[in-house]
Amino acid sequence: MGEFDLIKRYFTPASYSADVLLGVGDDAAVLAVPPGYRLVMAVDTIVEGVHFPVGTSAADIAYRALAVNLSDMAAMGAQPRWFTLSLCLPDSNEQWLSEFARSLNQLAIRYGVQLVGGDTVKGPLNISIQISGLVGDDGWLTRSGARLGDMVFVSGVPGEAAGGLQLILNPQQQAEEKYRQHLLERFYRPTPRVELGVSLRKLASAAMDVSDGLLTDLRKLCASSRCGATMQLESLPASEALSNVFGESRAEELALQGGDDYELLFTVSDKNLEQLDSVIAATGVACTRIGQITDTLTVQCYRNGMPIEVKDAGFDHFNAG
Amino acid sequence: MGEFDLIKRYFTPASYSADVLLGVGDDAAVLAVPPGYRLVMAVDTIVEGVHFPVGTSAADIAYRALAVNLSDMAAMGAQPRWFTLSLCLPDSNEQWLSEFARSLNQLAIRYGVQLVGGDTVKGPLNISIQISGLVGDDGWLTRSGARLGDMVFVSGVPGEAAGGLQLILNPQQQAEEKYRQHLLERFYRPTPRVELGVSLRKLASAAMDVSDGLLTDLRKLCASSRCGATMQLESLPASEALSNVFGESRAEELALQGGDDYELLFTVSDKNLEQLDSVIAATGVACTRIGQITDTLTVQCYRNGMPIEVKDAGFDHFNAG
Repeated sequence: MGEFDLIKRYFTPASYSADVLLGVGDDAAVLAVPPGYRLVMAVDTIVEGVHFPVGTSAADIAYRALAVNLSDMAAMGAQPRWFTLSLCLPDSNEQWLSEFARSLNQLAIRYGVQLVGGDTVKGPLNISIQISGLVGDDGWLTRSGARLGDMVFVSGVPGEAAGGLQLILNPQQQAEEKYRQHLLERFYRPTPRVELGVSLRKLASAAMDVSDGLLTDLRKLCASSRCGATMQLESLPASEALSNVFGESRAEELALQGGDDYELLFTVSDKNLEQLDSVIAATGVACTRIGQITDTLTVQCYRNGMPIEVKDAGFDHFNAG
Repeated sequence: MGEFDLIKRYFTPASYSADVLLGVGDDAAVLAVPPGYRLVMAVDTIVEGVHFPVGTSAADIAYRALAVNLSDMAAMGAQPRWFTLSLCLPDSNEQWLSEFARSLNQLAIRYGVQLVGGDTVKGPLNISIQISGLVGDDGWLTRSGARLGDMVFVSGVPGEAAGGLQLILNPQQQAEEKYRQHLLERFYRPTPRVELGVSLRKLASAAMDVSDGLLTDLRKLCASSRCGATMQLESLPASEALSNVFGESRAEELALQGGDDYELLFTVSDKNLEQLDSVIAATGVACTRIGQITDTLTVQCYRNGMPIEVKDAGFDHFNAG
């Protein structure tokens, strides 16, 4: 089966919404951006042995490849609409492809995104997705909008994905089965916070998704916003699974420095805190206040009011890959 | 130097045009699609050892990665505007990156496209570019519009890129230096026919770019248009370099079946032939009439009026890779 057939057979959606004027199968797709909207565009690539362990199932790989891109849309407050897939595979394995495509399609349908183009090439396993979304032309979220005094929030429970990865990398690590399952799920199937991101669009002053670790990413947000922040370690969302499997101290390290969570890190000014409560209630996504924006240009951690030095071990592909 | 710094240092354009509301450096880019335009989107990935030989220079790899995507825009009659880059590299080599970025930026400036997002990951060399362009909402080129009686045209001199690849793969092949240089240039630096494509938008009935070989791609165009075609072998654009290096017979094979040319294959109805002459004169791109659309559902080659059977050996990544 040739390249053209592969794409056509596995990756042609059954139907498109009306904004896809021409879908998979020509030299390019043709899409309609409605008046009053801006186009939001990002790309994220995952590589076997770097972003996921060798042996990860086709379904989990597909989920992760799309979820990390959906997360980029969430971080902008954008509604994801379309994506293209570049799939580099060592061989043309029909069972693998069919599991990959089924999982990809399931997640795409859940989040209302449509595959509009693809390229299948031969080579070491590498999945690159480029995603596009729409955002009202009256504003979007950036990393650069945090202001002195804004509160810093994070969604969900950061660190659990990194805990899952630790379990994969160290199979001898003891863990109760329910915790093991929970942590693996958080690594293999991070939840893109799209609804939360869209709800935060006119409410948060800055946002980004946590892919490299909470501390590293808060530093990036502060650098973009030309500010600093405090972080209260005792306020970090507690993970029963992490504490139970790794102990309190390592659990805190994972929460601060583990990557791959794809939670939203965002800042909200005082005047919007009440509205944030409504968003949390409406979306059902727990968001925890973990710190506050300062004018210091550094991120300072505290435990019960005492300053704490945390060694930075944030995840970076070229250093940690 | 970390991933974030790599992208920022080498791939942040010095400036953006006004339609890039937010460029490289946040979770996603924000772009303005002007009223009256549609968004055209494609992705093409090139992998070392499959799409280009091991040892290809960083500058040639960058050129090719972007050129094949620009060619997809040309095939739609779209004006390329923005692209994202996913760069998977075995190591963080600053000289390689700086040559890659310089070449990419040169080509981007020449064609008026802007890098708006990127991801740098560690792994086997793989360059994926996703390109977006704009086309008037009153029409774009597809593969499916060819109609009975339309004339079939091809731009440039197909086969020369494949000839260049033959010289790379078979270093013992004799060739006059001027021909060798010419053919290598056609392989490493295909010319995306963007201006021609844009000019053909309201003129051609169907178009695609020739990446898998003239015969294979004409079959694809016919399949999309639910028609057939004749092809006159004596009408194929003659390549002095191919004939000289490989002889007449092999030169014809390369013209028919060699991939990688990124020329435009398109169909034009009788009534638009005069207008096509003006486009050819204005763009300076030679376009040769090589056949005609039929209602047979097959592509039949002729030499001096006699039907000829040509064995299909079109390039396909999974079969030929």
